[in-house]
Amino acid sequence: MYTEKYLFNFTCKVFMKMGCPETDAVMIAKVFMAAEMRGLSSHGMIRIKDYYQLWKSGRINVKPNVAVVHETPCTAVVDGDGSVGMVAATRSMEIAMQKAAKLGTGWVSTRNSNHYGIAGYYAMMALQKDMIGISMTNANPLVAPTFSVSPMLGTNPIAVAIPAGKHEPFVADFATTPIARGKLAVAEKKGEKVPYGYVQDREGVPSDNPAILKEGGSMLTLGGDYEHGSHKGYCLSAVVDILSAVCSGANFGPFVPPSVAYLPVRKEKVGEGTGHFFGAMRIDAFQKADVFKAKMDEWIQTFRNAHPVHGIEKVLIPGDLEREKEQKIRKEGISVLPAIANDLEQIALDLGIDFSVQ
Amino acid sequence: MYTEKYLFNFTCKVFMKMGCPETDAVMIAKVFMAAEMRGLSSHGMIRIKDYYQLWKSGRINVKPNVAVVHETPCTAVVDGDGSVGMVAATRSMEIAMQKAAKLGTGWVSTRNSNHYGIAGYYAMMALQKDMIGISMTNANPLVAPTFSVSPMLGTNPIAVAIPAGKHEPFVADFATTPIARGKLAVAEKKGEKVPYGYVQDREGVPSDNPAILKEGGSMLTLGGDYEHGSHKGYCLSAVVDILSAVCSGANFGPFVPPSVAYLPVRKEKVGEGTGHFFGAMRIDAFQKADVFKAKMDEWIQTFRNAHPVHGIEKVLIPGDLEREKEQKIRKEGISVLPAIANDLEQIALDLGIDFSVQ
Repeated sequence: MYTEKYLFNFTCKVFMKMGCPETDAVMIAKVFMAAEMRGLSSHGMIRIKDYYQLWKSGRINVKPNVAVVHETPCTAVVDGDGSVGMVAATRSMEIAMQKAAKLGTGWVSTRNSNHYGIAGYYAMMALQKDMIGISMTNANPLVAPTFSVSPMLGTNPIAVAIPAGKHEPFVADFATTPIARGKLAVAEKKGEKVPYGYVQDREGVPSDNPAILKEGGSMLTLGGDYEHGSHKGYCLSAVVDILSAVCSGANFGPFVPPSVAYLPVRKEKVGEGTGHFFGAMRIDAFQKADVFKAKMDEWIQTFRNAHPVHGIEKVLIPGDLEREKEQKIRKEGISVLPAIANDLEQIALDLGIDFSVQ
Repeated sequence: MYTEKYLFNFTCKVFMKMGCPETDAVMIAKVFMAAEMRGLSSHGMIRIKDYYQLWKSGRINVKPNVAVVHETPCTAVVDGDGSVGMVAATRSMEIAMQKAAKLGTGWVSTRNSNHYGIAGYYAMMALQKDMIGISMTNANPLVAPTFSVSPMLGTNPIAVAIPAGKHEPFVADFATTPIARGKLAVAEKKGEKVPYGYVQDREGVPSDNPAILKEGGSMLTLGGDYEHGSHKGYCLSAVVDILSAVCSGANFGPFVPPSVAYLPVRKEKVGEGTGHFFGAMRIDAFQKADVFKAKMDEWIQTFRNAHPVHGIEKVLIPGDLEREKEQKIRKEGISVLPAIANDLEQIALDLGIDFSVQ
């Protein structure tokens, strides 16, 4: 078990050794820690190796000039200049919030970025300003549109964070697939199979092999099959791709650059880097803030009172599960799988810093 | 088979006989026809009876004062004054578009409305102004949150329309459940069973009975079961509910008034009527319009070129299926099921107008 502080400091050091300014390294480490603390280990320390290898391949700009390249009073396009995704994303969300503070809402589409970690982190930034936060990103193509065998879309997550009053906020953060890609990686590391309905092989035949993507297979969209609405998952994922990439001038769909170094950079490109989309809406742009919060509390209480199915203790509000995990992790520490800890130790050796495998 | 013109005129007459001003009746009939022409008969003529019965029960205001009750430069809350949903919704979307024209984006949350027909109609209004259109609504509670037996949410659809250049626009319009409620009604009218994964009985046991909702059952969220991401469908549906109702001051979740007269009005309420949420974003708030459209064309062409699974002719873009249906219906006419035509004939008799069963 590791403490948050230990892994935070280690992550900062890794990115500073790669050449990131300290402010950027701190920005990056905060997002990694948010993933680990919320129990989303698929987006936590396991990804350090991916970033390290991308950097070694010269595919990350550690001294980026993140800049607004187009704007209106309540929108902007941000160019991330090839930065670590967390840097372009944090700055983009800050811009969306600044615009919302002035005009009610702010919307930023970001290009030339990279994998930005958990979508929920940026949505949650809005909460402290009494704003609704929205965050989404495209990602490297692993997911097939309905009735296709071509991996054309990323797992393209959507996060929405909504402030409440006395209750903890509503935080939805989910991939537009039945399962996040990182969870396949975790299953593979653990040597486990996955349920049918998550992935298909290169011919479109359902599979339970979490490593099938390396053999030309693809992930399925939320819904799983057409009869159960996989075309709705395709719609959602496509909307995320278009808002993130067509609006910003990033690569879309099959052209999104890989977030792992073992996949080559595609020669053909239709834009710059990976794309994200962020929104911030002041709650008092709709209702007085205290009225909104009281009603949101009532919403949360109403749904907490839903009658659970037999054998289930209680009905959850989006965000509850991650908060429960966070409480546990805050007490017990962060667990890092041995295979990942060994990878981190190797990276530490390469960079001339310390990592203790526990 | 009926012509669009015949059913449009009939629908106008029905709502004018109920007391709606002609401009409102035309607004309403346009949305009904958009549903029928796009092959979404579950939201077409079958719903006239619902509206007629609500009106007879005094649950619809046919002379509403639809008004902005709160606003910022790019947001507004609209009070629909108990109107037919299509009236409050059309005016709300117009306001969102006016705000977007000035500032880049516009966002409207609407309360005190009723069932607004197909979500896609309002999203598509934005296309003619080179804007991305967004539309969503809550609806009467038929859907259980993940691990619950309580019908707490509506089928809460989301629609997103995105302009393209030489290609037809991208139009996604889908309920946040595997199937729309209206499709259960159609299956019931046809005497058909539905696949497992759509509905559960009052104990939470899966069912194939499309009429199970009348026996205390509930619909399931997109994903179907937890293992396949039904909690993501729950998140989506909840976000729609909160943006539509907490932002506007409408009823949320289980308090949303029924859109059918055979269900009584709930005594307890937490707001006014049904809620909707609309967004409009000028494409040139992000990219020059011609650049955006060219890139959107490229997106569409790329996805059209996806390799289909064996036995499927081609991979579709959201909106293609409805356009194909529209072409067919424009040639062949609109089919109205005998049971629905008989209902319409009865309504016509009651109101002293004509409807010919064909």
